[in-house]
Amino acid sequence: MSKLRYFYDLMSQPSRMLYIFLETTKTPYERCLVNLGKGEHLTDKFKATNRFQKVPCIVDKNDLHLAESVAIVRYLAREYPFADHWYPKDSQKRARIDEYLEWQQHNTRAVCATYFQYMWLRPRLMGTKVNPERAEELKQKMEDCLDFIEGDYLGGGNRFLVGDEISVADLFAACEIEQPKMAGFDPCAGRPKMTAWMERVREVTNPHYDEAHKLVYRIAPESVPRPKL
Amino acid sequence: MSKLRYFYDLMSQPSRMLYIFLETTKTPYERCLVNLGKGEHLTDKFKATNRFQKVPCIVDKNDLHLAESVAIVRYLAREYPFADHWYPKDSQKRARIDEYLEWQQHNTRAVCATYFQYMWLRPRLMGTKVNPERAEELKQKMEDCLDFIEGDYLGGGNRFLVGDEISVADLFAACEIEQPKMAGFDPCAGRPKMTAWMERVREVTNPHYDEAHKLVYRIAPESVPRPKL
Repeated sequence: MSKLRYFYDLMSQPSRMLYIFLETTKTPYERCLVNLGKGEHLTDKFKATNRFQKVPCIVDKNDLHLAESVAIVRYLAREYPFADHWYPKDSQKRARIDEYLEWQQHNTRAVCATYFQYMWLRPRLMGTKVNPERAEELKQKMEDCLDFIEGDYLGGGNRFLVGDEISVADLFAACEIEQPKMAGFDPCAGRPKMTAWMERVREVTNPHYDEAHKLVYRIAPESVPRPKL
Repeated sequence: MSKLRYFYDLMSQPSRMLYIFLETTKTPYERCLVNLGKGEHLTDKFKATNRFQKVPCIVDKNDLHLAESVAIVRYLAREYPFADHWYPKDSQKRARIDEYLEWQQHNTRAVCATYFQYMWLRPRLMGTKVNPERAEELKQKMEDCLDFIEGDYLGGGNRFLVGDEISVADLFAACEIEQPKMAGFDPCAGRPKMTAWMERVREVTNPHYDEAHKLVYRIAPESVPRPKL
């Protein structure tokens, strides 16, 4: 049976999530880098791997080609053994995690990625100018979402987003929340619970967390606190 | 044990999806209407049911309060018996469905809902004016997404999005694709495979499909084909 092949670029938040997850859980896999900066995801060769032409994606036994990080995590949970806390079999706990994974699509992921793209990526890739009014609007949406996580998900005294053990929800969330740091935004400023939680996620998954975020730490300006590597 | 309570408004696409699903699978539940037009989702009373203040959501045994339609479907699949084809236990088939359910968040759902809101809902609720350039841009995104479904998901000759039997993916997709009809957009125009597939989804789930879409059919202008009820 052929080994799980993982296609990724660490500039992509869900790529980092799955990288950290596969490494931390010691799931055997083959690394297949896809350089987004060089447009490797846009080639016909890669299209044969993933028809959506995005990373992350996997190719696994029985020639399964699978995209969408959340779908990949669910597939891995069925096919590979890892500690239950990552994606609990308990129906109610799993429901709570699933609820976050869907909610984040239009919240954490949407707002952090949009801000990063508008402020950092598009000006560099396409030479677009930043409109201060639009920037403020996108920043506010991000602040509102992070405030909700601080007050609701972390407000009850949980150590992690769903209960006291780390789950895939934490990894997805942390990787998204790291992204706007590159655009000079500090998501933890004024959010003590988020600060402590981000540090916990990092501790549990290091050295892989820092490895995956090396580029984020390097690109983020001096004004944004980050670990010294 | 108390009965599953389902909170919904049929103006909401995922509310329709779950309504049709619960009815078609004969899952016992209590109907709890939340009138979005009257702002019932914004009350403190409803906030105690769903902290996100959105529909659909459920309250089930052990006082589980769960939001996010995709997470709800996954929970129901664990807790209530229904035919396997809706959400197959087979790992690879389930992976394909999960992939669609995540992909749609930033595609089918995002583009159809955004177009509907921009063209129909916001002008009525907030008196906003439609900018023809922006309208064209949103329309084009929707056309691209629908073309991808026509060419990829339905292009291989499958009767349904993932294989030859109906699954939750079809129901989610169809309910989203119905929505822009209210804004005078016919998603099936020039898409023979989508036309036939939408009709199949409707047939398999009727009379519940038409019941759920009564308002859509009524609001959609004459130019958009719809069933005669």
